[in-house]
Amino acid sequence: MRLAFTKMHGAGNDFVVLDGVRQNIVLSPEQLRLLADRHFGVGCDQILLVEKSQRPEADFRYRIFNADGGEVEQCGNGARCFVRYVHDKKLTHKREIVVETKSGLISPRLEDDGRVTVNMGAPIFEPARIPFVSDSSEVTQVLDVAGAAIEITAVSMGNPHAVQVVVDANAAPVAEQGPLIEHHPRFPRRVNAGFMQVVDRAHIRLRVYERGAGETLACGTGACAAVVAGIRRGLLDEQVNVATHGGVLTIRWAGEGQPVLMTGPAVMVFDGEINL
Amino acid sequence: MRLAFTKMHGAGNDFVVLDGVRQNIVLSPEQLRLLADRHFGVGCDQILLVEKSQRPEADFRYRIFNADGGEVEQCGNGARCFVRYVHDKKLTHKREIVVETKSGLISPRLEDDGRVTVNMGAPIFEPARIPFVSDSSEVTQVLDVAGAAIEITAVSMGNPHAVQVVVDANAAPVAEQGPLIEHHPRFPRRVNAGFMQVVDRAHIRLRVYERGAGETLACGTGACAAVVAGIRRGLLDEQVNVATHGGVLTIRWAGEGQPVLMTGPAVMVFDGEINL
Repeated sequence: MRLAFTKMHGAGNDFVVLDGVRQNIVLSPEQLRLLADRHFGVGCDQILLVEKSQRPEADFRYRIFNADGGEVEQCGNGARCFVRYVHDKKLTHKREIVVETKSGLISPRLEDDGRVTVNMGAPIFEPARIPFVSDSSEVTQVLDVAGAAIEITAVSMGNPHAVQVVVDANAAPVAEQGPLIEHHPRFPRRVNAGFMQVVDRAHIRLRVYERGAGETLACGTGACAAVVAGIRRGLLDEQVNVATHGGVLTIRWAGEGQPVLMTGPAVMVFDGEINL
Repeated sequence: MRLAFTKMHGAGNDFVVLDGVRQNIVLSPEQLRLLADRHFGVGCDQILLVEKSQRPEADFRYRIFNADGGEVEQCGNGARCFVRYVHDKKLTHKREIVVETKSGLISPRLEDDGRVTVNMGAPIFEPARIPFVSDSSEVTQVLDVAGAAIEITAVSMGNPHAVQVVVDANAAPVAEQGPLIEHHPRFPRRVNAGFMQVVDRAHIRLRVYERGAGETLACGTGACAAVVAGIRRGLLDEQVNVATHGGVLTIRWAGEGQPVLMTGPAVMVFDGEINL
């Protein structure tokens, strides 16, 4: 089978995007693994399959697969790439698109500057739902991390985060402390560890040690969690630019109970064809 | 500029191959970096540019660039991919091709089974030319590696190698011992550290910690160095299959003063087009 694909990235989180609207695509786990392999295949973090939706209220459906063939629920960086893809490939002319995902309907929007805004849902602060083992309902607490006292804010954006404020993100001990926080006993399902440098009330620099993956170029939910944590601590305003190794994300949050809006880049890198 | 390219690999060592015969290609270091970048570009170990040769005796010229834009001399895995490329893209019908490289003319050959044979030159055993600091001309010696006595054979295949025999390649301490051998004071220009398991006189398993790069999927000169070292030690016959993480290479060496012949795979992965 000769398969056409497009390689894209959203702040360095990269995808092989497949048009399942114009062609019928069913891939085996072996084929997904090959597509994701950076030496023997195309290479990407995840594979994004665009399809027609069976639901009348949705314009499209999309599915995201990991390199191991497993399907994942949602991904802010992937949603942005999806929107750019269906627009640039002329599958739709709409700028606000209703999409069916494994975790429900979402409505990402293509902005005039070419970036894409995605509703990332409301943050969760109840310790039991993060989950974060705690006697109090306060989510900003001091953790004992291998003898050091580290103040973190625990928050869930669908996945758990522990965000700390650092003086200099570049110098932060991400590789050393990240795995210790990830596996800290107070986070029974492990946790993503964020290291946030507050530049001013509208700008932070962020590095994230992702659960099960190590440090990544840009973590969408990590950026949301950091800004939410900073706003709750009184350090940040409602709209914040987050500088990551992979690019800049703009996060907006109007406060308790409100959804977090993430705006960021989505870039077409190249088009290709592979025999599978 | 819209640039057509082909992604290939030779035993996991991967290349973006560009046709400079049918199109005129001049790339800046920034463009080379982008092509090589695995998240923001196409992604590869090196970029291989196929051109016409100005020399009447040569069929083609090829040049290999690292991700930093620097041009490198030669590469066995790259030479194999070059041959498959000019053949499959119908730039020639010859099976034995005379090619101008930065380090001189080579004559790789496309075999009937689709693999490619490359003459890797004769191994060098004079300690000063490896370079290997030694009072004797014997290149199999015991090194003190952080207190452990490790017997290695030193040999140059254009670049320096220190090969040791291990019981089980999978269990070999490549990550721990590799950097210690690489920087051992007896190798003033550092060294590639090979860990060879002798399965029988015609089969070895090999892992190589490459100088400046860490463990790689398959090191062509490392496979040559290991087989040459094994033959000199009386452990191997003249033709040996070398199993690496990236695939199998067949190495032949008729002995002192003779060139080493390496036969291995070269695989077309996909074709693409990118805006640079």
